[in-house]
Amino acid sequence: MLPHRDPPQWRAGAEKGPEGVVDDTPVLIVGAGPAGLVLGNLLLAAGIRTVVVERSGREQVQARARAGFLGPHSARVLAGNGLGAGMLHKGRSHGVCAFRAGNGEFELDYSRLGRGEAHTVYPQQDLVTDLVAEYLDRGGDLRFGVTVTDVDPRTGAVGYRDADGTGRVTGRFVAGCDGGNGATRRAMPESVTRHRQDHGVAWLAVLAEAPQSMAAVTYAIHDDGFAGHMARGPEVTRYYLQVPPDDDPRAWTDDRIWAALETRMRTGEFGPLRRGPITERRIVHLRSEVVDPIQHERLFLVGDAASLISPSAAKGANLAIMEAELLARALADALVRDDHGALAEYSRTCLPRIWRAQEFSRWMIELLHGPAAASADADFQRALRHARLDSLRESHAHQNFFAEHYVGI
Amino acid sequence: MLPHRDPPQWRAGAEKGPEGVVDDTPVLIVGAGPAGLVLGNLLLAAGIRTVVVERSGREQVQARARAGFLGPHSARVLAGNGLGAGMLHKGRSHGVCAFRAGNGEFELDYSRLGRGEAHTVYPQQDLVTDLVAEYLDRGGDLRFGVTVTDVDPRTGAVGYRDADGTGRVTGRFVAGCDGGNGATRRAMPESVTRHRQDHGVAWLAVLAEAPQSMAAVTYAIHDDGFAGHMARGPEVTRYYLQVPPDDDPRAWTDDRIWAALETRMRTGEFGPLRRGPITERRIVHLRSEVVDPIQHERLFLVGDAASLISPSAAKGANLAIMEAELLARALADALVRDDHGALAEYSRTCLPRIWRAQEFSRWMIELLHGPAAASADADFQRALRHARLDSLRESHAHQNFFAEHYVGI
Repeated sequence: MLPHRDPPQWRAGAEKGPEGVVDDTPVLIVGAGPAGLVLGNLLLAAGIRTVVVERSGREQVQARARAGFLGPHSARVLAGNGLGAGMLHKGRSHGVCAFRAGNGEFELDYSRLGRGEAHTVYPQQDLVTDLVAEYLDRGGDLRFGVTVTDVDPRTGAVGYRDADGTGRVTGRFVAGCDGGNGATRRAMPESVTRHRQDHGVAWLAVLAEAPQSMAAVTYAIHDDGFAGHMARGPEVTRYYLQVPPDDDPRAWTDDRIWAALETRMRTGEFGPLRRGPITERRIVHLRSEVVDPIQHERLFLVGDAASLISPSAAKGANLAIMEAELLARALADALVRDDHGALAEYSRTCLPRIWRAQEFSRWMIELLHGPAAASADADFQRALRHARLDSLRESHAHQNFFAEHYVGI
Repeated sequence: MLPHRDPPQWRAGAEKGPEGVVDDTPVLIVGAGPAGLVLGNLLLAAGIRTVVVERSGREQVQARARAGFLGPHSARVLAGNGLGAGMLHKGRSHGVCAFRAGNGEFELDYSRLGRGEAHTVYPQQDLVTDLVAEYLDRGGDLRFGVTVTDVDPRTGAVGYRDADGTGRVTGRFVAGCDGGNGATRRAMPESVTRHRQDHGVAWLAVLAEAPQSMAAVTYAIHDDGFAGHMARGPEVTRYYLQVPPDDDPRAWTDDRIWAALETRMRTGEFGPLRRGPITERRIVHLRSEVVDPIQHERLFLVGDAASLISPSAAKGANLAIMEAELLARALADALVRDDHGALAEYSRTCLPRIWRAQEFSRWMIELLHGPAAASADADFQRALRHARLDSLRESHAHQNFFAEHYVGI
């Protein structure tokens, strides 16, 4: 139990659920990443009481560098719900990406292609910091250092462990926003399908304390493997290097990282990189997972808990925000107006969008990497990859397709 | 030798090649399919003497039902070189295709998308009949029943076998238009790469003596496997059924074929098929092969000899005609104006187009079939296939991409 915090919402017995279950909290949100915090803020704005529990501490959550590219839908959700002040003030519009290969480089100004939309570059840790502050300002109940151990989707009962021991709370509804390895996904019954695809490649995700080296997001296609460059902030840049899936990040010294980036980014031809200390190096396996359905009884999965997507098309956080908004509306309908229609359709509404994002992510993976190295037709795949790149370079129709899917959900 | 035919062009000794080789014939063309016959006709029009040798008999060549969809570039090559009378008179413009799946059907009027271009439906056997007649009318030398046994790319010497025994002729240049299993591809040296990809699926290609059942080319996506419907002529329709690669076509009785087509085409929902006797049933393995480079010394590969492509996007004959036109121009430059520039670049000019077609063909294969049945992530691939279909149904940009690549080379 959590006696020393003792917020009124946490106590049992105040409300009765539809099946006579005693609800502590209308919506119990597990996980304080973008998914959980957007959901919590939107529900508070709708007058719905929520509790957010998060395993990590506040500093840790606010320092977690993950996504950084917010699509136009995410930006609208944030700005339209009073959650966009930081993004609007410090975020930067980004509408050009570049592709580099052995036969040159080309840029796509995707903000002028497709539906004419751009990204907003705003690092996840800044967004999460904003969302935590706003949630607390709105009077939200947010508990760090609480590890959820088990969830009963039928009753909404949630077991947890914190510094004081173990305890149990019940949500009328439980939102699983605790990622791909969290307790909420594990709580989904056997009848729920877990679709999985391992793309057979991994990225070394690197953060460098250095300004960006190029104006645009740059995807470099090289026989040594993919390399990527993405702006994060004035003094921080994200780089990616394709590495073998079983590689050890500690084997990648700063010098080795910069040398590999310079080779693959063809700096001899296109100009140097701005070096700086490497502050993060971690292996990201390009894996995809989709849970189907993403709801069961009182439990609703959001973001990485519902689906993992490779970072190749920067879709993860944007899917999370899209789902959080849909779930917030559906829960508000259910709790405020007793209309359960949208809630019943939550999974069916989200899954086609999740699969569209997965399909575009596959398209990007095929473009950037080709197959795993061991494949018998690796040469064939390599040639197809370059053909796709040529088509993207030359076909305006293909560029419009890319732009629309790159920024859209 | 071929004494009973004895055309003047066949005799040895008249011309000297660049390296002192005695050339019987400026251009010896192996194979009388669309590739060889377009090439022969264009060379004759440029005043260049050619001999075409073909293993099969005339009736057999003129009855071989293969491709039927000519893209706009092919139509322009044929019509612009006096080879399009039959196509213009009897061919039909076709600019709409339909996709059927469990969640309905949608049509794409691709003649109004992309570059606004359509196909001309004109069966390959009719086109070949026209091209043979025109080639002979132009005074061309065409020998049926001649099997080429070996080719020396360095000297242009070609060994053959016919009803009278074996013999040897020499071409200053040799055009390999004899398909994926022909002697000319085998004659390419070890240093030439043969890229191969087996897509792991096969089609039962069926010809029915029946009018078309639907106005448009129809692609049906079904868990039993893909089914396709393509018009060929007023009384002949092409159908395809995805089957296991090791299937026996004789196991497919007329009734079994119609029953499978009706299930996969969802005739209960979309209306019946017009049945008729099945006159051809053969297994087509969806395989891709690309030779790189497609030229070596005096030998130049065209059409299926240069690359095999799955029939999923109707690209095979269109690539063949594109290559034949490029090679005819290059050979005319070399033989008439002694300018060997285009000839030296023939392979480098063709290969990017071949790979672009292969890449689009892969896109179609992924859309229509997903992976081979044994794949561990078959469910994942199935969901991606439906996501691609949804995207194509809803995204105008995706439709433009499709249209441009579907009819273009």
